Amino acid sequence: MNEIKAILEQVQEGSLSVNDALLALKKKPYEDIGFAKVDIHRKLRQGMAEVIYGASKTPEQIIKIIHTMQKNNQKTILITRLSLEAAMIIQKTCPMDYHADAKVGIVGSRPVADGLGKIVVATGGTSDIPVAEEAALSAEIMGNEVLRLYDVGVSGLHRLLSHLDELMNASVIIAIAGMEGALASVIGGLVDCPVIAVPTSVGYGASFGGVAALLSMLNSCASGVSVVNIDNGFGAGVLASRINHMEVKK
Amino acid sequence: MNEIKAILEQVQEGSLSVNDALLALKKKPYEDIGFAKVDIHRKLRQGMAEVIYGASKTPEQIIKIIHTMQKNNQKTILITRLSLEAAMIIQKTCPMDYHADAKVGIVGSRPVADGLGKIVVATGGTSDIPVAEEAALSAEIMGNEVLRLYDVGVSGLHRLLSHLDELMNASVIIAIAGMEGALASVIGGLVDCPVIAVPTSVGYGASFGGVAALLSMLNSCASGVSVVNIDNGFGAGVLASRINHMEVKK
Amino acid sequence: MNEIKAILEQVQEGSLSVNDALLALKKKPYEDIGFAKVDIHRKLRQGMAEVIYGASKTPEQIIKIIHTMQKNNQKTILITRLSLEAAMIIQKTCPMDYHADAKVGIVGSRPVADGLGKIVVATGGTSDIPVAEEAALSAEIMGNEVLRLYDVGVSGLHRLLSHLDELMNASVIIAIAGMEGALASVIGGLVDCPVIAVPTSVGYGASFGGVAALLSMLNSCASGVSVVNIDNGFGAGVLASRINHMEVKK
Amino acid sequence: MNEIKAILEQVQEGSLSVNDALLALKKKPYEDIGFAKVDIHRKLRQGMAEVIYGASKTPEQIIKIIHTMQKNNQKTILITRLSLEAAMIIQKTCPMDYHADAKVGIVGSRPVADGLGKIVVATGGTSDIPVAEEAALSAEIMGNEVLRLYDVGVSGLHRLLSHLDELMNASVIIAIAGMEGALASVIGGLVDCPVIAVPTSVGYGASFGGVAALLSMLNSCASGVSVVNIDNGFGAGVLASRINHMEVKK
Amino acid sequence: MNEIKAILEQVQEGSLSVNDALLALKKKPYEDIGFAKVDIHRKLRQGMAEVIYGASKTPEQIIKIIHTMQKNNQKTILITRLSLEAAMIIQKTCPMDYHADAKVGIVGSRPVADGLGKIVVATGGTSDIPVAEEAALSAEIMGNEVLRLYDVGVSGLHRLLSHLDELMNASVIIAIAGMEGALASVIGGLVDCPVIAVPTSVGYGASFGGVAALLSMLNSCASGVSVVNIDNGFGAGVLASRINHMEVKK
Amino acid sequence: MNEIKAILEQVQEGSLSVNDALLALKKKPYEDIGFAKVDIHRKLRQGMAEVIYGASKTPEQIIKIIHTMQKNNQKTILITRLSLEAAMIIQKTCPMDYHADAKVGIVGSRPVADGLGKIVVATGGTSDIPVAEEAALSAEIMGNEVLRLYDVGVSGLHRLLSHLDELMNASVIIAIAGMEGALASVIGGLVDCPVIAVPTSVGYGASFGGVAALLSMLNSCASGVSVVNIDNGFGAGVLASRINHMEVKK
Amino acid sequence: MNEIKAILEQVQEGSLSVNDALLALKKKPYEDIGFAKVDIHRKLRQGMAEVIYGASKTPEQIIKIIHTMQKNNQKTILITRLSLEAAMIIQKTCPMDYHADAKVGIVGSRPVADGLGKIVVATGGTSDIPVAEEAALSAEIMGNEVLRLYDVGVSGLHRLLSHLDELMNASVIIAIAGMEGALASVIGGLVDCPVIAVPTSVGYGASFGGVAALLSMLNSCASGVSVVNIDNGFGAGVLASRINHMEVKK
Amino acid sequence: MNEIKAILEQVQEGSLSVNDALLALKKKPYEDIGFAKVDIHRKLRQGMAEVIYGASKTPEQIIKIIHTMQKNNQKTILITRLSLEAAMIIQKTCPMDYHADAKVGIVGSRPVADGLGKIVVATGGTSDIPVAEEAALSAEIMGNEVLRLYDVGVSGLHRLLSHLDELMNASVIIAIAGMEGALASVIGGLVDCPVIAVPTSVGYGASFGGVAALLSMLNSCASGVSVVNIDNGFGAGVLASRINHMEVKK
Repeated sequence: MNEIKAILEQVQEGSLSVNDALLALKKKPYEDIGFAKVDIHRKLRQGMAEVIYGASKTPEQIIKIIHTMQKNNQKTILITRLSLEAAMIIQKTCPMDYHADAKVGIVGSRPVADGLGKIVVATGGTSDIPVAEEAALSAEIMGNEVLRLYDVGVSGLHRLLSHLDELMNASVIIAIAGMEGALASVIGGLVDCPVIAVPTSVGYGASFGGVAALLSMLNSCASGVSVVNIDNGFGAGVLASRINHMEVKK
Repeated sequence: MNEIKAILEQVQEGSLSVNDALLALKKKPYEDIGFAKVDIHRKLRQGMAEVIYGASKTPEQIIKIIHTMQKNNQKTILITRLSLEAAMIIQKTCPMDYHADAKVGIVGSRPVADGLGKIVVATGGTSDIPVAEEAALSAEIMGNEVLRLYDVGVSGLHRLLSHLDELMNASVIIAIAGMEGALASVIGGLVDCPVIAVPTSVGYGASFGGVAALLSMLNSCASGVSVVNIDNGFGAGVLASRINHMEVKK
Repeated sequence: MNEIKAILEQVQEGSLSVNDALLALKKKPYEDIGFAKVDIHRKLRQGMAEVIYGASKTPEQIIKIIHTMQKNNQKTILITRLSLEAAMIIQKTCPMDYHADAKVGIVGSRPVADGLGKIVVATGGTSDIPVAEEAALSAEIMGNEVLRLYDVGVSGLHRLLSHLDELMNASVIIAIAGMEGALASVIGGLVDCPVIAVPTSVGYGASFGGVAALLSMLNSCASGVSVVNIDNGFGAGVLASRINHMEVKK
Repeated sequence: MNEIKAILEQVQEGSLSVNDALLALKKKPYEDIGFAKVDIHRKLRQGMAEVIYGASKTPEQIIKIIHTMQKNNQKTILITRLSLEAAMIIQKTCPMDYHADAKVGIVGSRPVADGLGKIVVATGGTSDIPVAEEAALSAEIMGNEVLRLYDVGVSGLHRLLSHLDELMNASVIIAIAGMEGALASVIGGLVDCPVIAVPTSVGYGASFGGVAALLSMLNSCASGVSVVNIDNGFGAGVLASRINHMEVKK
Repeated sequence: MNEIKAILEQVQEGSLSVNDALLALKKKPYEDIGFAKVDIHRKLRQGMAEVIYGASKTPEQIIKIIHTMQKNNQKTILITRLSLEAAMIIQKTCPMDYHADAKVGIVGSRPVADGLGKIVVATGGTSDIPVAEEAALSAEIMGNEVLRLYDVGVSGLHRLLSHLDELMNASVIIAIAGMEGALASVIGGLVDCPVIAVPTSVGYGASFGGVAALLSMLNSCASGVSVVNIDNGFGAGVLASRINHMEVKK
Repeated sequence: MNEIKAILEQVQEGSLSVNDALLALKKKPYEDIGFAKVDIHRKLRQGMAEVIYGASKTPEQIIKIIHTMQKNNQKTILITRLSLEAAMIIQKTCPMDYHADAKVGIVGSRPVADGLGKIVVATGGTSDIPVAEEAALSAEIMGNEVLRLYDVGVSGLHRLLSHLDELMNASVIIAIAGMEGALASVIGGLVDCPVIAVPTSVGYGASFGGVAALLSMLNSCASGVSVVNIDNGFGAGVLASRINHMEVKK
Repeated sequence: MNEIKAILEQVQEGSLSVNDALLALKKKPYEDIGFAKVDIHRKLRQGMAEVIYGASKTPEQIIKIIHTMQKNNQKTILITRLSLEAAMIIQKTCPMDYHADAKVGIVGSRPVADGLGKIVVATGGTSDIPVAEEAALSAEIMGNEVLRLYDVGVSGLHRLLSHLDELMNASVIIAIAGMEGALASVIGGLVDCPVIAVPTSVGYGASFGGVAALLSMLNSCASGVSVVNIDNGFGAGVLASRINHMEVKK
Repeated sequence: MNEIKAILEQVQEGSLSVNDALLALKKKPYEDIGFAKVDIHRKLRQGMAEVIYGASKTPEQIIKIIHTMQKNNQKTILITRLSLEAAMIIQKTCPMDYHADAKVGIVGSRPVADGLGKIVVATGGTSDIPVAEEAALSAEIMGNEVLRLYDVGVSGLHRLLSHLDELMNASVIIAIAGMEGALASVIGGLVDCPVIAVPTSVGYGASFGGVAALLSMLNSCASGVSVVNIDNGFGAGVLASRINHMEVKK
């Protein structure tokens, strides 16, 4: 609202005409590059501006968006759901660190981890790792230290319990599981930090593409657990980062 | 098939005419009392004959079935899904031990426990107890020792783990839970005996009347877990009893 | 794990026999009062110990749990999903502050708000207020300042936008809506703090008891949004409190 | 009904025998070309006759239908759901303007826009553009001026609000969105013209192929919003055109 | 936007301070009466301001809202989903025309019908009449002439066809049906005006509370058909009124 | 179409004016009694005219419809889904044979059974009997001999097999079952007559109000099985009667 | 049961030992060819023995089954769900009439049509033709005259009504439609013969692979309509044939 | 718990320091080989350690796991859901018995059958055989004698009944069926041993990938039936083996 106030003050001072003020109030805080509106001010507004959802874009479009972002001084850009094929084309033009399992590309330097503590990313099985890596890399790129605890599902409880110290010391935990999704409830019952549950589409038959895990997690009898969309590692990573960067607000 | 053989031998001996044999082969091994076919031979055929599903029957019908069964020498009769109102009417005529939480009535003497070991009935919360009692009483009435472990859900894992000895010593475990139904997977991962999972309709919102727990249990990543219908404590009790009475078959 | 270490040291010192140590390791950190296991140590383990889920308990059971908790020095007890009838019976024995719309009872003194900032609880319509009050009271009872913004649904966007300052200053936002549940996405797109979305069962026809809002919220295109179960105001309040009390962890 | 009256008058005048009249009454207002009934009179009856649903037809069948339509003096023919491969074959025989993203082919001249005002076609994201183009081209081909507002989803509300003037001046708005489908509700709350909501199958996980957006749109708390099938851009375009061509009826 | 311009001009003229302008820009165009925000300017913004959704409000709340609206010069107020009991209480204070089948109350004078033509409200059966009356009364209260065609379902096609003239002369048709919902498709295939389909929860078994009719209507093979929520007669009436009041927009 | 021909011949003869003919062609073959259109000619058109769906009608409306039908010489009238309360009111005015379990009332004399053979109505359990009686009475009222085989579900196969003769001699079989609905498949595999499967809402938990039985029946691996709506005994009875009255058509 | 009687009489006569009788009673009325049990006596038992479900079998397996059937004097064999590739392999060995659209192969001579009347096979659109041809060919192969009425969907009601004579003269009607599936209800309301509804998976979006049409057909408000599985043309053809071959049974 | 006692005794004896004891208590009973935690002690804990879920692993990973297991003295290793391609690569390095229909590989020697009796694996059709073979091989590899009864579905009841002796002599029965899944109920009604029902994804249309069979089996009216996930042959085999190896537990 300060922006509006500034505009109004300029009107009062006579340094801005009414019509120009009206225009300024409507001015788009993004750059239109034809096929997409690149959101320049988003970082200010949402704390992360450097993400490109790669799934439905051509390599050429992605390159163009990267360049527009870089022109606007973005140091680090994360590209999610990026196929190996697209990554190989982009890498010819832009230096990019590509993680094939997570389908994530990183352009530019990684930030220093400056969160309140560690984010633990735990998975039920090995098949959940791609989603977990999307979450972990997203969190790292936003300035978090991440501890990975993979394949610690509830069917072998001792594997999970042997990491009790790490779980109890975590700042935020991302619990990722397919099939019956019980991991989130069990972890939620052990710790007192926020737990972000990510159901995955891992499973067959009555897992219904992740619905069983999703419902299981939504019904968690443990407190402090919330849920994001099936396979949404990125969303979990972003949310965990925001929680891990909480500060005093007056 | 022995029965058929006996009939054929009588035909061969001339002690039974072809028409009578034909009739005998078709003879109903149940007694028709108008509104229902009381299945007298069921005990032989299925190992349990003494059960009346009370939900859709009037007290008068139930009394009539009890009398028919008693006439056929049933010593113990279990009546499930029996409302308090119906129970009070029946008790005027038939001495009956009624369990209001389980909605179960027991007529006659209880059998001696003669199974291979103990059946553990575990629940996630206190709201699951009615289903658990239906299971436990059904198992007891079929000659099993039952150990009840109630309110040991996964959101407080230490409550479950403090009973590890009992779980590991069980012959069969019935794991009963609503909401996210994770109890079955966690128990299934701890023990090596058969686990029968019973989803309950306990919960709200996205539990969808037990569907979340049902799907969770069907997708259990632990081996040795199978599932019965939502709130089907009786079915779990019967199956547990059969497993607890396994013997050598040649 | 420190507790285990202490026990082992006592064994080493000879001040505790092996058998007693074994017993101590298994000792239940809860008090068994027959129909439920009251979890005394839960506050330590999960940061909130003082909650009773009232839905499936009799007033007598609730009173007994309150007394057990008070004996263990709980100063504040929150009872959720408590019917007016049960509340009136309990109030005869225990002084209790009862909120009829939220179906929430509060026994004891309220804590001082000591969070990082304010928690905003926003609803789409007036019918969502009971869920919102459950969330708001739960958060307040755990030491948070709560700002209520009710009836600011997206069908009258100016109502929401007129509160932009409060939204942007929030530490955490709980967005509560039934019907199409768009509130969470719109708020999620405006702010950079964590947003906890609570779908409600408000609506009719194709809202399917909150499923439409639930799916809408899970698919939110805004970052930083996570979801709890339909009508789960309490869960949202607890999670918001944890996030609002984040601190540095090493 | 005038046609029936005319036939009856001819019977009365004796210029038509009873049998011929009976035949005439049953005469089909379409031309049967073997594999399909080309509906010649449909334009009169429904205001649009020139559309071929291309999805389940061979290029040869489409060409034959085009020729039959042209023989019956259709000036403009729209072919929807037409694959690039089929389009290339058809273009060898018939001059056709093909839009690859919308999978729409246009044969013949475009009509002059003669509606009451502009139809705005708005999308939540860039992935919704194919459906939007199907809607926009369908509307244009039926004589409407169309304004495209793409990628104005609710997660960046300022992008939508910066087009408030265009939205408020629209005659009809087609709101197209996948994922959480909130765009329709937000637009519906801002304007007072009819809003046609088109859910798209854009999304993953709990979007269930467009179901989340569909339910969200059906439950819109804004008035004046109605919904068509998932991805049905054509249907939205036709309906918008009809509304934009409303006239006084006595 | 003119309002913003006016404020800016006052700032420029010095007749309004910057702070007051900022305040004015945020000023709520609704009156806050405690339990609800009565939307005074909504009529201007959406073309209908006079509706109260009665379902979740007490008679006292409704009376208070009516009085606030009347103070703001609303001449006609429509109250939907109003129970007979609530209506009888309200009628003691406010003169109100109550329609028990539609659960609709009308306070004040009815407007003159000034639409482009007639709105036809057609139902498949007699059980759909409550929803139809909600639609018809809503349309009438917004200045439309309504023609009711009830019980003209497709299982007796002659009943529908005998009203072909009325259907073909309609400006807009609201097609209301439960069970298989085929009425919308059949009408949609006969006419060239917009058809608004309203699925109803009439039916049993596999009608799933209106889902069968809803899906049927969404999949209509006829053009020009759009759908609103199950049982949403009011929404259909409002939309029909908007379409029936279309005018030239430049 | 003969009716149309007759009208045309009268026009040709001059005994009917064009306008009157037009009117006659549109004349409704039903009598409008205000709240419903009583379909007088339906018997001719569909072979059964004498049915009133009682569920959503008041006793007064039903009495009025009965009188209208009787005035039009209906000898037998069947009223389905008629509550005991409504039946008792109607019986004061009209002599009626009321069947409380089936909720069916019969006014007038029953027709002679004149079908090709017997219709067998079989149920899986005793709880399915109300639906079965609706089917059986509907079939009887339309001139069929009905054989009832109740409580012959597949969990006690011998009960079903002991009726093999009756099943194999049936003209049509109506197989009625809830829960897992296997009865239809088993009967379908034993006989070569048409089998009409009626799923019932009997069951609990994952029976989902008859959905489990419905899906089971739709997926029957036996030939000659078709399905009607859940609990639709009447529909099955009507269809069975039509099949049992098949005759040579040229 | 006559077979059993014969066996018993032989035992009585001494021409069959008890053991041999027991064996005979259990003798399988099918020939086991390793990978499948070819059901030789099925024709007697079910009135159609000559069908091979081709979907999950190799060409070699199909050829082997054909030969086994031919050895057992089957004159006509129908193979359903047979891919073009498999058909071409089979045709090298067995002369076979293959219908590519219906994926149906016919080996041997076609029977004479000896039913009560004509079976009409009607479809809503051209995309439903493959399912319709499966139904039509299945019915023809079982001795029925079939009349095909394709592309007569309800969105162009005149196309359907122009065939009213054929519909009214039909012995049985198979109504096949995808999308909204209204065809079955409309036809059911026009005729008094049995109508078999076949939902097809034709459609997109909210058709959910045929579910919309299935639900629509199950909820048909017309009498005499029953439903088979989605895309089950064969099942409809078999059932129609059985109904068209009804005869007097005593 | 004995392990814990042993550790404590060593601490008491001074042979183990407190810190080492703490470490030992946390020591992982599995070997971490980078991409997966190979669970060495699982055999002890769950009675089967030798299974690799092949679906989501590369041949190289599987080979590495096999070698780790063999190093730890596993004699027999079962690999499920193993594609033909992966099997061929693995066979180059490890001798392996591969079953292509079941997608099962067996490394090492098979154990002697030492169960209580025979496990019968029955299927409804030939398409269910792959799931059945997964179940049968899993059971055999765990020391069970298995009797296969394939293609005995309920649509030809005589095929099932001809195996009544084998069914009645079984120790455990695994009933595997797709489509309507009635096999489990019919078998459950015939025998008194535990029946494990496995729904398969065999079917089309309203079978919904196995959901129809799953629901049918969950709703089985026969006692002693429990259900595992769709297509989960392995899980059924493991559970059957556990039941077939029950022994006295004190």
